Parts: sequence; structure tokens; C-alpha cells
Amino acid sequence: MRRRLDVAYDGTEFSGWAAQPGRRTVQGEVQTALTTVLRLPAAAVTCAGRTDAGVHARGQVCHVDVPDTVQPADVRRRLAGVLPADVRVRAVSVAADGFDARFSALWRRYAYRVCDDPAALDPLRRRHVLAWPRPLDVHQMNTAARPLTGEHDFAAFCRRREGATTIRTLLDLCWERDRDGLAVARVVADAFCHSMVRGLVGALLSVGEGRRDAAWPAAVLAAGRRDPSVRVVAAHGLSLEEVGYPAPGELAVRAEQARAVRTLPS
Amino acid sequence: MRRRLDVAYDGTEFSGWAAQPGRRTVQGEVQTALTTVLRLPAAAVTCAGRTDAGVHARGQVCHVDVPDTVQPADVRRRLAGVLPADVRVRAVSVAADGFDARFSALWRRYAYRVCDDPAALDPLRRRHVLAWPRPLDVHQMNTAARPLTGEHDFAAFCRRREGATTIRTLLDLCWERDRDGLAVARVVADAFCHSMVRGLVGALLSVGEGRRDAAWPAAVLAAGRRDPSVRVVAAHGLSLEEVGYPAPGELAVRAEQARAVRTLPS
Repeated sequence: MRRRLDVAYDGTEFSGWAAQPGRRTVQGEVQTALTTVLRLPAAAVTCAGRTDAGVHARGQVCHVDVPDTVQPADVRRRLAGVLPADVRVRAVSVAADGFDARFSALWRRYAYRVCDDPAALDPLRRRHVLAWPRPLDVHQMNTAARPLTGEHDFAAFCRRREGATTIRTLLDLCWERDRDGLAVARVVADAFCHSMVRGLVGALLSVGEGRRDAAWPAAVLAAGRRDPSVRVVAAHGLSLEEVGYPAPGELAVRAEQARAVRTLPS
Repeated sequence: MRRRLDVAYDGTEFSGWAAQPGRRTVQGEVQTALTTVLRLPAAAVTCAGRTDAGVHARGQVCHVDVPDTVQPADVRRRLAGVLPADVRVRAVSVAADGFDARFSALWRRYAYRVCDDPAALDPLRRRHVLAWPRPLDVHQMNTAARPLTGEHDFAAFCRRREGATTIRTLLDLCWERDRDGLAVARVVADAFCHSMVRGLVGALLSVGEGRRDAAWPAAVLAAGRRDPSVRVVAAHGLSLEEVGYPAPGELAVRAEQARAVRTLPS
């Protein structure tokens, strides 16, 4: 039986999501905890967003397949007792038919948090907020962000991986000041390629501080290849906040569509 | 010339505010940074709330006296470059006549944050939120808190210090759920004696989880002596949020009054 897990973590001391031999990873910790709590020889956990080293998550979604004979009570509480304090499985539920944490997802929403007055940065938030030494013009950054939304080849902002497409649909990219005065980017896409959010944010920060004009990020996008003058900002400002799924009846169809697209040659 | 400093810190790795030989303290770090930036042989910093080891601050207020000949520009930015990342001097200003960070203060406001569903505790907030294993009834805690406000001898909730009065005016003590579902106590008093907030919070948590009835904390208060069944909760849930001062013309009078009260024999 497939279970859905809603997971949060402080990425500071993880080498990212994906299990790697000899490294401390979120996937590794969650899989180890599940094998302990469910008394299984192994557990393979699939997630919606394979976050890089140092990236946090408040709304990561995963699935794991568990034999029908295993029906333990109170898995959530028991996982909390076994997991280290920097990762929490906040909810455990029986997955709807056809649910695949990765392929059923319609969109991923990330937040990137920046403090452009580093002397005032709340020390309790320093592990998940980027300190930026110059003041940012959020209005200019939003002007620059607008033409980036929609379906495009984001190769200019991604680290290329052999044979993978870099065409994505950016559904939302906008900045606002939160109540503490931080500049927070809301970034939503059907999916992201490697380092895409951090490349987009880096380009927009160059606009926000006045080093580039508002038309520059769209010109970089149109050029269609990795631009070395686009800074990829630090991982610790980034957090996976939420993953969106279709209604239960459409989970399987969506997963089939997404699988077909991702496995096309680029 | 006296300067006012507004200071924030993550108390996790500090042995509290007060400088102690061989210990890492907030006062020690701020004083060292000031001597470096202002090129002084020494700097004596006085604060409004001498927080214990592990207690955080977002709104600590301090003062320091600097020779009139020292008028450096941009102290705030230069302090940020010298201070460790877990303490920030968020604002530096010339203090109004008669200002004393400690004795001019009318009130101190603390927050104590509790997550009563530890499996769901945001890992990014775990260093400043107490994980409590049982659900809390915030309404019951507020019922229990109401009779504690006003002027009382808080000896029952304090660690006694020889010759010091434990009479304080508790101006506000109430709980609410924040938007993340945390139970947050807002605690305001003219001043606090040692471990008073953490003792009050510990007593109210016993009510909130149903182990004690709502009349119990007031009965403990009335008994007037340290009650060993009152738990003093962990330091890391506590944060000094704000300090209140009178209008500029009343700063000196207030400081004189407060000095007289604090130096009376108890």
C-alpha cells in the first residue's frame, strides 16, 4: 500500500535530498527511520522535489510503498521519535489511487528569502535567509520577472544535465516584502531543472541592486545558453514550500503524462 | 555621549547576557566589537534584560557611554562586520537625555513559544520553540493566567537571590495560537526576577495539558514560596521581544525611581 509523507527539514546539515553513500541526506534519514519503525528490510522513498545540499523544505511531499501486511498504528509519532531533529515527517496518509509524489505533481512552489539590511538580520533566521549587502528594489525585480513566466527553455538559468530537457513552465515569479522587511521570492513552476530557482533569483538580485536593468534577465533567457554572469545564489535562502496535485481522479493520468515528457530525449 | 543600541541574538551558543570570564556571552561579544570599531580601551554595555543562557532576544535594548571625541560614522554597519552572526546590533542611536537602558525601562515583553505537536515542529524553528509532547488547552491556560496579573510577590515562581525583592507588576500574561499553530505566551512586566517567566510558563503548561486545574497557579502564587512542583521550562523557547520606555522628558525621573526601588532591602 502506498503512503504519502509530508516532510519538512532544515537543510543546513544535509548533503541534499538524494541518498549518497557516505553522506548525510534527507532521503537516507527518512528511509532509515521508516525501516526501523515499520520493521522492513528496506524502504524506497520518492519525493516531489530533489532539493540540493543546504536547501530547506517546509512542504516536501514523498511516497513510499509498504507491504499490505504492514499496518502499524501511529507511524507519524513513532517516526518523530526516531528521526533527527532537523527532519520531521509532519503527516502520514494512505495515498489515493494513482498517486506518485514526483510524477503526479502539477507544480512546485519555492520561496527564496533575502535580507538586504544584513546588520538587522534576525539571528534566529540567519540559517534560512540570504544576507545581501545592498538595498533591493522589489518593484524593479518584479518588472524584470514578469516576462520570464510562461513556457520557455530555461537553459540559460540551469546547470545542464546530459539528455535532459530544460523546457519548463514558470507559473509565478514575484517578490514581496514580508512583515519583517525581508524580500521574499515566490517561485512556482510545473517542475524545475537543476539550480534554476537560484539562477533566476541571482539574475533578479542583480536588477534589484541596480547593477543590471530590468530587461536583462529576459535577454539572458532568450539567449538560451548558460550565462556565466548570472550568479547562482546560495542554497540556504531557498525552501520548498508546497507541492500541488490534481484531484484524486486525475492523479494517475497526470503521472503518465509527466513520465512521458520527462523521458523524451531533449 | 550615551548611545542606545538595539540588539538581537540567537542565545543557543551563549552563556547568557552577562559577561563572565572564560565564557562566550552576548555582553562580552558586544563590548569587544565596540572596542574594536570605536578604538576604545574598554566599553561597558548595560542592558534592559539580563537574559539567561540559551534565551534569545529580538528586542534587547542597551546603552554605552562613549567619549565625546569619538564620533565615528556608520557604527552599525561596522559592528555588523565585526560581530559573530548570532548577534546583531540592529540600530545605533544617540540616547535622549536621562536615558538608562535598564533603569528607564517601564516594561519588558517576552515571548515563550511552544509546539504541542512535536512531530509537526518546523525544523527551522526548533532552536527557539519548545517541543511539548501533549496537546495544550490555550483557553484553560488563559483562565489560569488571569489572576496572576497585577502587583504580587512572585517568590513562588522565582529563584531567590539574597537581599532582592521578588515583588513585580505583571502587566500581561496571555496565550494565543500563531498562524503556524504554535502556542505563544506574551509576558509583560515592569521587570522580572530570575527564572520568573520560565516558572510561570511551566505552571501554565501543567494546566494546559490537564495535569493541574486552572486555579492552581494562583494558589501557588498566594503560597508565596518556591514550589518544587512548578517546572521551570527550557530556556530555548524564551525570547526578549521588546522593552518599553517613557517619553523622552520622563526618562531621568523614571530611572531615579527604579534605582531607588531596586536598591531597597527586601
